[in-house]
Amino acid sequence: MYSLGEIMEAKSIAVIGASRDPQKPGAQLLKVLKKVGFSGQVAGVNPQGGEVWATPLYRRLEEVPFPVDLAVLHIPPAAVPGALRDCAQKRVKGVVISSEGFAETGREGARIQREVQTILKSSGMRGFGPNTLGLVNTATGLTTSYFANPQMLQPGAIGFVAQSGIFVGALLRYLSSLKGLNLSKGIGLGNKVDVEETEALAYLREDKQTRLIAMYLEDVRAGRHFLKVARETAAQKPVLVLKGGRTPEGGKATATHTASMAMEDTIFEGVVKQAGLVRLASIDELIYTLKGFLFMPLPKGEQIAIVTYSGAQAIMSIDAAIEAKLKIAQFRPETRERIGRVIATPAKAQNPIDLFPDMLTHGFVKTSTEILEALLADPGVAAIIFISFANQEREAYGPLVEVLRNKNHKPVFFSLLGAKKDIEISQEFLEENGIPCFDFPERAVRVLARMGQYARQKSKALKEQ
Amino acid sequence: MYSLGEIMEAKSIAVIGASRDPQKPGAQLLKVLKKVGFSGQVAGVNPQGGEVWATPLYRRLEEVPFPVDLAVLHIPPAAVPGALRDCAQKRVKGVVISSEGFAETGREGARIQREVQTILKSSGMRGFGPNTLGLVNTATGLTTSYFANPQMLQPGAIGFVAQSGIFVGALLRYLSSLKGLNLSKGIGLGNKVDVEETEALAYLREDKQTRLIAMYLEDVRAGRHFLKVARETAAQKPVLVLKGGRTPEGGKATATHTASMAMEDTIFEGVVKQAGLVRLASIDELIYTLKGFLFMPLPKGEQIAIVTYSGAQAIMSIDAAIEAKLKIAQFRPETRERIGRVIATPAKAQNPIDLFPDMLTHGFVKTSTEILEALLADPGVAAIIFISFANQEREAYGPLVEVLRNKNHKPVFFSLLGAKKDIEISQEFLEENGIPCFDFPERAVRVLARMGQYARQKSKALKEQ
Repeated sequence: MYSLGEIMEAKSIAVIGASRDPQKPGAQLLKVLKKVGFSGQVAGVNPQGGEVWATPLYRRLEEVPFPVDLAVLHIPPAAVPGALRDCAQKRVKGVVISSEGFAETGREGARIQREVQTILKSSGMRGFGPNTLGLVNTATGLTTSYFANPQMLQPGAIGFVAQSGIFVGALLRYLSSLKGLNLSKGIGLGNKVDVEETEALAYLREDKQTRLIAMYLEDVRAGRHFLKVARETAAQKPVLVLKGGRTPEGGKATATHTASMAMEDTIFEGVVKQAGLVRLASIDELIYTLKGFLFMPLPKGEQIAIVTYSGAQAIMSIDAAIEAKLKIAQFRPETRERIGRVIATPAKAQNPIDLFPDMLTHGFVKTSTEILEALLADPGVAAIIFISFANQEREAYGPLVEVLRNKNHKPVFFSLLGAKKDIEISQEFLEENGIPCFDFPERAVRVLARMGQYARQKSKALKEQ
Repeated sequence: MYSLGEIMEAKSIAVIGASRDPQKPGAQLLKVLKKVGFSGQVAGVNPQGGEVWATPLYRRLEEVPFPVDLAVLHIPPAAVPGALRDCAQKRVKGVVISSEGFAETGREGARIQREVQTILKSSGMRGFGPNTLGLVNTATGLTTSYFANPQMLQPGAIGFVAQSGIFVGALLRYLSSLKGLNLSKGIGLGNKVDVEETEALAYLREDKQTRLIAMYLEDVRAGRHFLKVARETAAQKPVLVLKGGRTPEGGKATATHTASMAMEDTIFEGVVKQAGLVRLASIDELIYTLKGFLFMPLPKGEQIAIVTYSGAQAIMSIDAAIEAKLKIAQFRPETRERIGRVIATPAKAQNPIDLFPDMLTHGFVKTSTEILEALLADPGVAAIIFISFANQEREAYGPLVEVLRNKNHKPVFFSLLGAKKDIEISQEFLEENGIPCFDFPERAVRVLARMGQYARQKSKALKEQ
């Protein structure tokens, strides 16, 4: 049986069912592989032969003149078992079954899916799907999704696993249009006829390019095994999880989506807790949390400092922090003194620090950089939330970025308010410089709380080992 | 005693403490009033006389050659009582005290604040603040915030009340940079030396331009009276509330922000429930919820339909809907039949409707418009969540917008996924056409649940009257 790693490092791809119609999915995938610059060999298979997107189409898989590591199937369910036998003959290592119409649709689909399983088992080939866009390996430019583009294949540090068909592709398009949220590997599981979440997790745990793992799951097949692997993985890198089918109604819908088995959410929650996973409740929460983990180190405590220009936002941040079980740091005397020197009202040198209108006395840059230095130096401050104005001048936060450069031993999260366009300008600049920016400080606070919780679980897990 | 309405309709403004330095706050306000086109008369008061931004500065308020309805004070706390006596002499109707340094800072500030209160009471003048940017009336171009700009003064339907200094200004800049989220009136309360939340609410209840009220509060002064007015107001228009100081730590911080009295959050929650207010937990939630209420009618039931291209997003939407106590609609046979005619797999004509890849058969436009028509016509569907691709072609959703035009008897919320830039293009087009677009469907679902809950409370309150 081939390992998942061998498939992810495939040096050649055959697209079975590549149409000569250049707009059809299989043909589009051949185009995408050219465009993203896949480093290996590529061929299409079509009973009529010919070519599409300057790629030859062979009548039969056996005619492909090079060994095929990975086959992508764009053919109807009934044709899949036959094609898989051809693949086995050709000594293909792995197959991605993109088509839908298997166990998620009823009895006949389920029968074919079982047949697929039998062929895979007896041949040692590894299978992904059915009903998935499949794989991404940004290190080699490998993708089996005909929606991919070069931006989506930029190398990053997120290992993404999704039990879904098209979702991983759509989300990837979104993620890759943000700053710094690129994938190392992407693994679509679909109906999980063979490769499932536990194997994907174990693979990503060992993958050098993957610093952080994000999962969208609809069920878990082998609970105990998953728990064991998840626990080992979370002790090494953060594992963020989003689960579809939390409610009975949602669970029922997963059956027709990826033929999932509903599982009690309390059971899944128990696995999350015992394994030390970071569970999120929505996609946007997943994305914000990814950003925090990727951009900043883990906090070494629960005490946060809040710098702000708006008392109201400071208060809402305090509420969010306390609700998330964080603490509001007490500054040491040196810190208070240092801050007191650059604000108009030294008595206000306490946490949260309200810069407005005090910053008008010494100017925003002097006041804010000095305060940031003081907070970075205070061992009683584990993390900093910096709430400020969006600025239409791209480099307005340049001096603050300079202070933070090479001093990122504690997380610093920005949150900017102002006109939407200005927020985009300032945010882009900050995130290009590795400083995460959140739409509202409450979000930053919640991400920080999750990072802190993960840090505690991880150090506990490491001690137990 | 003047009414709040008389102050909001001020025909003339004097800025007391307007500096000749054009960059100082008072001078900036004079500039802003010119720029936003305030319809009334404007003067500055400065002991040295002169002019700034082509506006005359009078040495004393009594020298201003026209009656002054509203005075804005940009002077230190100690000078405020004297200036107020001048205002009373001049028969000024209302004063906005922008300066900070009153009850929120300690004993001396509290003493001055009490003196201010006494002068206001004996003269009948109405006071806002201290420690507030004050008032906005977009119908007359009135603003007392030196951060305002013409975009922020575009007339809208949101009446906004904020117990804060600078926050209302910063948030207003953000809101006004989005589509369709403009204010009718804005009222900053600051330390609430005179005008407080209950009076502001009663005023906005009667204000014709205000269709919806949003409040940021740190405390409530007269609980019973507030409850009564809030209940009457919520029976007429939605009242959205965000409260700072939910936690003991946050409550403590409100004391130094707006000299607020901490109140048990359970008590405030009781008021919210009894009055039928819509309570939000963060600014972003407030903004999403505003959008739903402003753009769409209230739902007439709890049954939602979900149209999607991504099974995973549909499942996450179902989970969010069930968690928010909504229901997944059962389509009537006519609806299923009609939908079955435009998708490739008629058996899939159920809720949620997964368009992908079925829409490839008849094309996206035909499939999606026909489905939308069918759902709008089904009386068992109270609201529609439409999950789709962001598209870089601005008018890609034009045909869907046409279907919805003049048929907005039930809420239709969009949620688009794709590259960030494409989302912005599609969202701008949809929102310009009155269709709200949410970053992720879970958000749309939660807003819908809040609108439904408000609709039920409102009809109950109307029956009881």
